[in-house]
Amino acid sequence: MSHSFHSNEVPYKIYLTEEELPKAWYNVRADMKNKPAPLLNPETRQPVTFEELSKVFCDELVKQELDDTTPYIPIPQPVLDFYKMYRPSPLVRAYFLEKALGTPARIYYKFEGNNTSGSHKLNSAIAQAYYAKKQGLTGVTTETGAGQWGTALAMASAFFGLDCHVYMVKCSYEQKPYRREVMRTYGAQVTPSPSTTTETGKQILKEHPGTSGSLGCAISEAVEVAVKTPNTRYVLGSVLTQVLLHQSIIGLETKAALDKYKIKPDIIIGCAGGGSNLGGLIAPFMGEKLRGEADYRMIAVEPASCPSLTRGVYAYDYCDTGRVCPLSKMYTLGAGFIPSSSHSGGLRYHGMSTTLSQLYHDGLMEATSAIQTQVFEAATQFARTEGILPAPESSHAIKVAIDEALKCKETGEAKNIVFGLTGTGYFDMVAYQEFNDGKMTDFIPSDQELSIAFTHLPKV
Amino acid sequence: MSHSFHSNEVPYKIYLTEEELPKAWYNVRADMKNKPAPLLNPETRQPVTFEELSKVFCDELVKQELDDTTPYIPIPQPVLDFYKMYRPSPLVRAYFLEKALGTPARIYYKFEGNNTSGSHKLNSAIAQAYYAKKQGLTGVTTETGAGQWGTALAMASAFFGLDCHVYMVKCSYEQKPYRREVMRTYGAQVTPSPSTTTETGKQILKEHPGTSGSLGCAISEAVEVAVKTPNTRYVLGSVLTQVLLHQSIIGLETKAALDKYKIKPDIIIGCAGGGSNLGGLIAPFMGEKLRGEADYRMIAVEPASCPSLTRGVYAYDYCDTGRVCPLSKMYTLGAGFIPSSSHSGGLRYHGMSTTLSQLYHDGLMEATSAIQTQVFEAATQFARTEGILPAPESSHAIKVAIDEALKCKETGEAKNIVFGLTGTGYFDMVAYQEFNDGKMTDFIPSDQELSIAFTHLPKV
Repeated sequence: MSHSFHSNEVPYKIYLTEEELPKAWYNVRADMKNKPAPLLNPETRQPVTFEELSKVFCDELVKQELDDTTPYIPIPQPVLDFYKMYRPSPLVRAYFLEKALGTPARIYYKFEGNNTSGSHKLNSAIAQAYYAKKQGLTGVTTETGAGQWGTALAMASAFFGLDCHVYMVKCSYEQKPYRREVMRTYGAQVTPSPSTTTETGKQILKEHPGTSGSLGCAISEAVEVAVKTPNTRYVLGSVLTQVLLHQSIIGLETKAALDKYKIKPDIIIGCAGGGSNLGGLIAPFMGEKLRGEADYRMIAVEPASCPSLTRGVYAYDYCDTGRVCPLSKMYTLGAGFIPSSSHSGGLRYHGMSTTLSQLYHDGLMEATSAIQTQVFEAATQFARTEGILPAPESSHAIKVAIDEALKCKETGEAKNIVFGLTGTGYFDMVAYQEFNDGKMTDFIPSDQELSIAFTHLPKV
Repeated sequence: MSHSFHSNEVPYKIYLTEEELPKAWYNVRADMKNKPAPLLNPETRQPVTFEELSKVFCDELVKQELDDTTPYIPIPQPVLDFYKMYRPSPLVRAYFLEKALGTPARIYYKFEGNNTSGSHKLNSAIAQAYYAKKQGLTGVTTETGAGQWGTALAMASAFFGLDCHVYMVKCSYEQKPYRREVMRTYGAQVTPSPSTTTETGKQILKEHPGTSGSLGCAISEAVEVAVKTPNTRYVLGSVLTQVLLHQSIIGLETKAALDKYKIKPDIIIGCAGGGSNLGGLIAPFMGEKLRGEADYRMIAVEPASCPSLTRGVYAYDYCDTGRVCPLSKMYTLGAGFIPSSSHSGGLRYHGMSTTLSQLYHDGLMEATSAIQTQVFEAATQFARTEGILPAPESSHAIKVAIDEALKCKETGEAKNIVFGLTGTGYFDMVAYQEFNDGKMTDFIPSDQELSIAFTHLPKV
């Protein structure tokens, strides 16, 4: 037989009990000596205030966004209850992948795909919907590209009885009708962006008739509607520090599961687009490192086609192409940067979370980039050995985990490698088909292209 | 807040440990006083022999098919190891659904959708692939309609390094390209049926140019290729008794989880197409009932558009429309019966497992049917309260579980209701869209239509 039984102490899946579910999120900024630079008002270029942000975001979320001193923030009970429907998520020992690679390394992955949104996004969506409901709001708006965040927010809104209006990038709206229908099944209103429902949308349609839309445009429309509609706020699924805070549940569970079996990770790997998954996964480990209690290698993996950490500049930039949101100091490719159309899946954001940017700038974590076709090779190997069909985003982390495991094979080291498997690829089969048919191409921006984008950075 | 914390002893999800995973499948036939009628050779009309069946199926699987006396059959270690990648599956207490219904009933569901095949089908696929590999075969063939079974077999074949050739009903092949790509990602060869790769296919294409195919035709093609190809056998995902045997893992885990919390179910509900999920779910409970140790209500739910148990006849019939497979005594609508094109999802088989047919005939279980639009209403309510987007098939069980819970609300009884949630609906969004748009229609065959189909039953 091609596979045989592994006798071992660590089970295939380490599940925490519901009692062991973390009761508080961890705010890594509290332990950072160099705090992330503050968001700036795009007009005044002064740090944004609570009053300014609370016109767009829920009060409690603005507080979380601005709080860089409180280390633990209790998870409200209704959010904890919702978490229990799909959490704790399993930490899986990749016995079969290890065997296929012939590596002495021990590979673990934290699987966040076992919920209907198909990704970790639900961890923050339910928190944000809760705070909106608690504030007495009646609705939320947001944008979505590939659709995972929109689905997560639609689920969370259905749970708390909130109206949910999702502006979905037009090309995704048309190419991913199933994603759209999942959101509608959860009661969300889904509008292709740009649309004629907003001034921004009308303006863009006038200037670029026939455009297939962009995330930046969808953000601008969602923000406009949120500000104009009574009892409604805008919510965002990545990049913001509040989102990283909610996503710390991933890392806290991972650490609790590893501690249970006295496993100390050597390397922790996560894919990075806006940084919410990676920031959440590494949070408690980074906390230990910042406090000098332990040391770990932590690696951000980004697409070679959208390499903000590895090839961007560390500067203040616009968070959105519409330039309505605050300025953020981060590793960025420039707000005008749009990844090649040959780029599949998410991880297409031009910037990076301010927190991760500061940590990377301070040399506390590493970053690397991966080439698309190699990412899909790793994804296919993973699917065939570990059973789970991974999202293209998550497969960036798989690729680097495999590389590190193969290095261990050469050196004979039995390192503990942990990576985040953020989601499933069920809605990404168009990209898989391209790969299966040998038609997938790679794209790496030239230095010249990037330096042009950098010239449009705002002067602060 | 619309939801508050439930203090309780039973967690949201009851997980067994890997040590508690059942080590043997349970063969309910061993405890049946009236054994299911034997399969007949369609030509001789005599019970089929091991020799006859082993030309089409793997030896070990034929033994299991013919064995109605051995109560427990050990699960081979490599299959157990594979099970550990996605099992034990959770038994979930539907606290939020109970609250939404305002029922005193306690609702539990066994969730089989947390694997890439999206359903319980993988439980049998991995067993069948294992026995094929053990016999030294190099490949397997099968048919698939909606694609869950084909995906499961592709995954299992990839794991054991077997060639996998799937004949996919042509209309599904074209309408569900994502399903097809998942199979290809797992290395399977997928051919739209009818095809020109078989004599059967060529014949059908000649007689019906432009046909969109049928499951019966796909079965005939897969069997033909299996018989003609060296070291290759045909495998089937439902109906056969061997499949119900493998699916008993569902019921055994469910019972172990309930026993852990000393919960005795009053009602056990499952959807029924060919019967593999339901037969697996109820197996150990039915065993207790047959041995006089306990009593339970067990309910099969079938679509009103394909009502084999509730409106069919109990007679020998062809298992496939191509009439190449053995004759089976079962509740049937006639091998020529094809559900209306308005019927969504699976559960479209004209017959029913011989085991379940005998148990139903002997009054040991109940059956009811559900109307499609009401099934999707239940599915939507479930998705919005419990988070999981259910498959249309599984939603038949949800509908009846909700009905029973609402009866409890009227009577004030706190019954324990257990149902099988066989899979997720990610690949069924076309049907959800029809429902969301108010365009879904219902179809119930007339008595006259059914009686015409009955006239074509074989004379035995």
